[in-house]
Amino acid sequence: LRIAVLGVGLIGGSIGLAARRRADAHVRGYDPAAPVLEEALARGAIDAAAPDIAAAVRDAEVVFAAAPVGALAEVVRDALAHAGPACVVSDVGSTKRLLAEAGADERFVGGHPLAGAETAGVRHAREDLFDGAVWYLTPARGTAGVLYERLHGLLRRLGAQPAAIDASLHDRLMATVSHLPHVLANLLVTQALGALGEERRLPAVGPSFRDATRVAGAPSAIWTDIYLSNRDVLITTIDELSRGLADVRATLASGDAAAVSAWNERARAARESLLGAALVGGPVQELRVSVPNRPGVIAEIALALGRAGVNIVDLALSPSQDNRQGVVSLWVGGDEASARAEELIAALGFPVVRA
Amino acid sequence: LRIAVLGVGLIGGSIGLAARRRADAHVRGYDPAAPVLEEALARGAIDAAAPDIAAAVRDAEVVFAAAPVGALAEVVRDALAHAGPACVVSDVGSTKRLLAEAGADERFVGGHPLAGAETAGVRHAREDLFDGAVWYLTPARGTAGVLYERLHGLLRRLGAQPAAIDASLHDRLMATVSHLPHVLANLLVTQALGALGEERRLPAVGPSFRDATRVAGAPSAIWTDIYLSNRDVLITTIDELSRGLADVRATLASGDAAAVSAWNERARAARESLLGAALVGGPVQELRVSVPNRPGVIAEIALALGRAGVNIVDLALSPSQDNRQGVVSLWVGGDEASARAEELIAALGFPVVRA
Repeated sequence: LRIAVLGVGLIGGSIGLAARRRADAHVRGYDPAAPVLEEALARGAIDAAAPDIAAAVRDAEVVFAAAPVGALAEVVRDALAHAGPACVVSDVGSTKRLLAEAGADERFVGGHPLAGAETAGVRHAREDLFDGAVWYLTPARGTAGVLYERLHGLLRRLGAQPAAIDASLHDRLMATVSHLPHVLANLLVTQALGALGEERRLPAVGPSFRDATRVAGAPSAIWTDIYLSNRDVLITTIDELSRGLADVRATLASGDAAAVSAWNERARAARESLLGAALVGGPVQELRVSVPNRPGVIAEIALALGRAGVNIVDLALSPSQDNRQGVVSLWVGGDEASARAEELIAALGFPVVRA
Repeated sequence: LRIAVLGVGLIGGSIGLAARRRADAHVRGYDPAAPVLEEALARGAIDAAAPDIAAAVRDAEVVFAAAPVGALAEVVRDALAHAGPACVVSDVGSTKRLLAEAGADERFVGGHPLAGAETAGVRHAREDLFDGAVWYLTPARGTAGVLYERLHGLLRRLGAQPAAIDASLHDRLMATVSHLPHVLANLLVTQALGALGEERRLPAVGPSFRDATRVAGAPSAIWTDIYLSNRDVLITTIDELSRGLADVRATLASGDAAAVSAWNERARAARESLLGAALVGGPVQELRVSVPNRPGVIAEIALALGRAGVNIVDLALSPSQDNRQGVVSLWVGGDEASARAEELIAALGFPVVRA
């Protein structure tokens, strides 16, 4: 299989590594940054370096455009212009309607692997980056079936789970579960700093604010493009949230306790539904453990659970103001595992409760 | 020292335990639920059980009203009615202007320990619950100095860090860093469920949504009261957020990349300022580690850091869709500790990057 990768950073480099080692592919790479291209070659992410897009895609059977979102449309256009008639061209951008124009070409299938957002650069590229990761594909009505099948099969060999999704639904989902939380994180930290006034001292109020603002001020070099490329949908999503805020404001203003409770219970049901839908292995349960916040405590708990084969799906640590104690929330899949985890943690002497 | 605790759940019970063991106090307890009162006695959280508030506060020098928020005002009123002229009466409620009426009495000082929100019940009470925790006090202009000093000294002996704060500022801070993030978590899960449509399958998009929605649908029995008791301020805070959303909406609509970047950079600066203000031990740094998500990996990393004396201030695990791999974000205090942590993690063979 002959593959071209246009942009050999974390994602492009990982595609190259996985394709060479797992799909026995010959990978030609192109990157506008010569040192990046050299590093990709040195790391074995590509077999050969091409001087431009035309040279990279010549004779290729599959092309991945893995450029930053802002440059993607042009890279895809160039790739389609130079690729052969039986070559499938895809991309890895985080929004998909942007490439709707390319979708008119039967050789194009939009793509978005849900992996690797947390690091960047070919030095972090790895063969197993996509193992088990959902890789969204947004075929258009005109997409050639044989090309779609080839891409799908390759992604499976890379370790990913390809999943077809409508481009509009994809972008709406991303706006809701990624872009909007980033916007809110930014607004919350700015607002909190304002509320602090002269004090500029943040009280230790448990995990809600800390968790909600972890992604505040995510790298502008990446996020400005992401926000703008999906801005139409993001604006719709912001409007929807604004209506939700207006509703809850009215409920609070009414002082109707039953209405506030009912609103909160709907959210509880929604969260449970989402957790159940998102995670493999049955409904997830939360355990809360009070611990002294000294080095080694998390390890002690994680080891005890690990020895018993209980996997921690998610965890969050909420230290006190002076980091001397805290509460660890652990999410564990299924009744049996959480009961076992509760026993094990109690046996270590830490107060534990199922939330 | 003679102390009365009105409501002997997690907070009241922990006050009793700490006061008896650390301040050599005699603690009389009252609770409307007889079994709770018995359990508090059995656990050694109180010396004696009182049949009513009047009996509990008789001869007391310090009274803590530790009832649920909805019942607090009445409990405080009863306590002031029956307490002696040289007794200081305080509470542990999460909003403070609610008790402004009580503030007219020179014996009353509002209080709010930032501890214990994650669990409930006297069985989780512990002597060290308040160790290092900020304990906000909201004295009024008329508060008697000698009574304030007595309360302050006792809280120090309980292990807490008492900090005087204006009641209005307190409530605004809580609205911003706790109540509003809870409201947003509720709105986000509801909105995401709607966006999923028929699919009801949540893509694995990294930590932002998961983190922002951990507290969605927090227990209605507690949170309905909290929302309503602080609703005036919470509404103001919601309005402020709505204006922020309208601003960012306009910026997005303009398509002005420089303006979007500048907005994002302001949030980045705000987050750094808040982290620096909140945490002891210098500016916190984030390390991101790619790991296979098998039992024991977190333990391995935490142990390696623990052995080297590097404390983990905060951490977040973002598993992939199938829980087979993930990225762990670790927050570590200071340049030296984070450099050491990076070395140690790299030595374990996990790709690590400073975020």
